[in-house]
Amino acid sequence: MNISELRPLADTLFDDLRRLGFDGIGITRESYGAGETVAAEYLCAFAAAHGLLAEPDRAANLVFRQPGARAGPAVWTGSHIDSVPQGGNFDGLAGVVAGLLCLVDRQRHGSSAALPLEVVAFRGEESAWFGKAYMGSGALLGKLSAADLELTQRSSGQPLAACMAAAGADVDAVRAQQVLFEPQRVRAWLELHIEQGPVMVARELPLAVVSGIRGNVRHNRVTCRGDAQHSGVVPRWLRHDAMFAVADLIMRIDEHWRVLLERGTDLVVTTGIVGTDPAEHSISRIPGLVSFSLEARSRSRDTLEAFYQLVRAECTAIGRERGVVFDFDRRLLSEPATMDPALCALLARACTAQGTAFDTIPSGAGHDASLFANAGIPSAMLFVRNQHGSHNPHEAMDIDDFMLGVQALGAACDGIGAAHG
Amino acid sequence: MNISELRPLADTLFDDLRRLGFDGIGITRESYGAGETVAAEYLCAFAAAHGLLAEPDRAANLVFRQPGARAGPAVWTGSHIDSVPQGGNFDGLAGVVAGLLCLVDRQRHGSSAALPLEVVAFRGEESAWFGKAYMGSGALLGKLSAADLELTQRSSGQPLAACMAAAGADVDAVRAQQVLFEPQRVRAWLELHIEQGPVMVARELPLAVVSGIRGNVRHNRVTCRGDAQHSGVVPRWLRHDAMFAVADLIMRIDEHWRVLLERGTDLVVTTGIVGTDPAEHSISRIPGLVSFSLEARSRSRDTLEAFYQLVRAECTAIGRERGVVFDFDRRLLSEPATMDPALCALLARACTAQGTAFDTIPSGAGHDASLFANAGIPSAMLFVRNQHGSHNPHEAMDIDDFMLGVQALGAACDGIGAAHG
Repeated sequence: MNISELRPLADTLFDDLRRLGFDGIGITRESYGAGETVAAEYLCAFAAAHGLLAEPDRAANLVFRQPGARAGPAVWTGSHIDSVPQGGNFDGLAGVVAGLLCLVDRQRHGSSAALPLEVVAFRGEESAWFGKAYMGSGALLGKLSAADLELTQRSSGQPLAACMAAAGADVDAVRAQQVLFEPQRVRAWLELHIEQGPVMVARELPLAVVSGIRGNVRHNRVTCRGDAQHSGVVPRWLRHDAMFAVADLIMRIDEHWRVLLERGTDLVVTTGIVGTDPAEHSISRIPGLVSFSLEARSRSRDTLEAFYQLVRAECTAIGRERGVVFDFDRRLLSEPATMDPALCALLARACTAQGTAFDTIPSGAGHDASLFANAGIPSAMLFVRNQHGSHNPHEAMDIDDFMLGVQALGAACDGIGAAHG
Repeated sequence: MNISELRPLADTLFDDLRRLGFDGIGITRESYGAGETVAAEYLCAFAAAHGLLAEPDRAANLVFRQPGARAGPAVWTGSHIDSVPQGGNFDGLAGVVAGLLCLVDRQRHGSSAALPLEVVAFRGEESAWFGKAYMGSGALLGKLSAADLELTQRSSGQPLAACMAAAGADVDAVRAQQVLFEPQRVRAWLELHIEQGPVMVARELPLAVVSGIRGNVRHNRVTCRGDAQHSGVVPRWLRHDAMFAVADLIMRIDEHWRVLLERGTDLVVTTGIVGTDPAEHSISRIPGLVSFSLEARSRSRDTLEAFYQLVRAECTAIGRERGVVFDFDRRLLSEPATMDPALCALLARACTAQGTAFDTIPSGAGHDASLFANAGIPSAMLFVRNQHGSHNPHEAMDIDDFMLGVQALGAACDGIGAAHG
C-alpha cells in the first residue's frame, strides 16, 4: 500500500466532513439525523467518484465494496459516522475513512488478498442522542429491542423507530430482532478508532492493538423525589431535599469506587446529566425532584453487577434516611468484549512489519466491535494516538499517525483468510 | 369590624384571582409580567367598585386609599401580588386582600382610627423571576441598584429595568436609588402573610405575631468548571468531574450545617437550582460544567457571614483536591430584621381582645416588612395558619383563619397613633 498516494484523499475527506459537520463549536452529526445523513451522502459520492459501490443495509447503515468482488466470505472493516453533540471529527469517522482508503487502494492497484474487503459505515453508535449506544450495529445483529425503538431523541422527542425509518431502515425487521445480514459471510471485523484516553500520548505510541473492550451498565434517567417547599421555613430535620439526597448518593458512589479501585477492580463511574426540575426552579425552593443519568463501565461483567447492586442498596438507604424515593428507568447493559487473539496477532505483525511502535491496551470506551465479538464474529481493533480525548471539539489525531494505522489495517485485512480463518 | 359581612368579598377576591393566575398546575404571577399585571388590574377594578382610590407609586406598585383621607401621616399595610412559577394563591396576595378588606370596612362604616390607612400591593417580591427578592419595596426605598436592574428574567432574558419600565416604573429614579415616597409619612408597616412553615398547623394556632425575619445570603449562579471528557476512558485519578465536585461541596455544606445546628445556630441552606450543562449533555461524557444556586438564611447576620466564608473555603479546598474551579456571580445579601415591639404588642392585644389563640414565632422566609424595618419604619407582621407550606400549588389557608387575621389587622391599624406612635 502506497500511503503517501492515499494521504491527500485522507486530508480531503476529513476536511470536507469537518466543514459539513461543524456546528459553530464542534462537530454535530446526530444519530439518524441531518448531520449524520449529510456525512453519509458525502461518503456515497466519494465512493462513486472512486469507482466503489455504496449500498445501505437493511438497518440504514452503509456498506462499501468493490464492483465485481466475489460473493462469498468477506472481511469487514469500518466504524460509525455519527458524533456526540459538539463532539470531534475523528471519533468513528476515522475508522470509516481508513476502510475506504484501503478499498480505494485495492481498486487502484488490485490486491492479492484472500478475501474481499467490505467497509461498513454505521449510523447511530453514540448514546448521546437516544440514550442507547450501538443502535446501527445492534439493529444489524438483531439486538435492538422493541423497547429500544421507543427511546426518544433528546431534542426533537421523536422515537428512534421513526428516525430510523426516515433514514431508510426496515424498522419492522429491526423490531422483530431479525439478523439483517449473513453472519457466516463475515470472516472478521476489524475496526480502526482513535484512542479516547490519554495512554498512547503519554507512552508516545502512534498505534495500539486493543486487548478487550469495557462493557457498561446504564440508566438514562433516575429520578429522586423529595418534597418541594419554601427554602426559608423548613428546618433541616423536616426537609426532603432531592438535591442533597442525590449529592449524598454521588459521594457514596465516589467512596465505593475508590475502595474498589484499591482492590484492583476495573471501574469508572459517571453521572453525565444531573439536574433539578426546571418547572419548579427557584432559588428559594427546596428541590423536590432531581433527575440524573448513571453509568458504570468495567471490563468485568461481575464488577458491573456487584457495583450496580451496591448503588441500588445505597439508594434504598438514602431514601430511608432522607425521606426521598429513587425511581429507575430501564436498565441498559452492554457486555464487555474480548478481542480475537489471532486477529490481534495479525495487527501486531502488521505494525512490526512496517516498523511502527505499538503496544497492546484495553479500550475503556465501548465500540461496535463489542457487538461483533459478542455475536461470535472474530473481531479486533486498532487504536490511533489522539490528543485531548474524544466527545469534545478538541480531538487531535495526527494524520501521519492515521496513515500508519491505515497501512497496518490494510495489511491485516489482506492477511485474513491466509494467516487466519 | 363585621367580618361576616366582609367574608363573601374575601371569597370572591381569592376565587377570581386564583382563576386569573392559574397556569394549569398552580398559580403563576410573574414579577413585572403578565400574571402580575392581570392581578393588579383586577384589584384596581375591585377598588373602584368599592369607592376606593388606586394609584401606582413611582416604582409601579399600587397604593389603595379612601378618597378624601387626610394627607398627613398614615398607617401602611399590604404585601405583594406576584408569585413563584407554579406557586400558590395566598403567598403575598393574602396580605393585600386583608388590607383591602380593612379599607372597604372603613369606607362602608367609617372609622374612629387616629390615622388614615393605605394599602400597598407590591410588585416583584419573589426572587424566582430575576434572582432578586423585594424588588418592588426595594425600588420604593431606594435600595435597588443599577446592577440589580441588569438582572434578566428567567424565561424571556429581558432585563429587570425593561420589565419595570413596561409596568410603569420610573426606572431612572430607581437606578439613581432615590427614595420614591415620604418615609416620615409612614407611621407603621403592618403585613399579614400566610405562614410558610409547619409550626402553626402543628401548634393549632390560627394566628401568630412575628418576632423577627431571617435574612439571607445568596448566589444566583455559581459555576464549577472541570474537564469534559469521554466517560469510559479517563480513570478516576485523572478526572476533573464538575458534578462529583459539586456533590462533594453539597455534602460538606450539609455536614457544617448539622454541626452548626448542634451549637444552637439558626440556619437553613438550599441549592434550589443545580444542573450539568445541557449543551454538553451526554451519558457518556464526564460533566465539565455544573451551575448551581446557593442560599443560606439565618436570623443572625454573623451566622450568615461565618457560614458563607466556610462555603468559600470548602470551594477552594475542593478545587485543589479535584482540579476544578468555582466561579461566583454577585453575592446578594438581605439583612435579617427585627420587628417593632410596640406594634407586636398591639397585634397581640388585638388577638387577645377578639379571643383568638396566637403565639409569637420568627419568620424563616423574608418579607417586604424586612426592608421597612431595616429602613427605620416601625414594622410588624401577622401570620395566618396555612397547610403544605408555600411556593407550591398546595398552599391551603382556611378563610375562617384569614378573617380572624383581617379582624386583628384592622384592630391593630385602628390602634396606631392612639396606643402607638
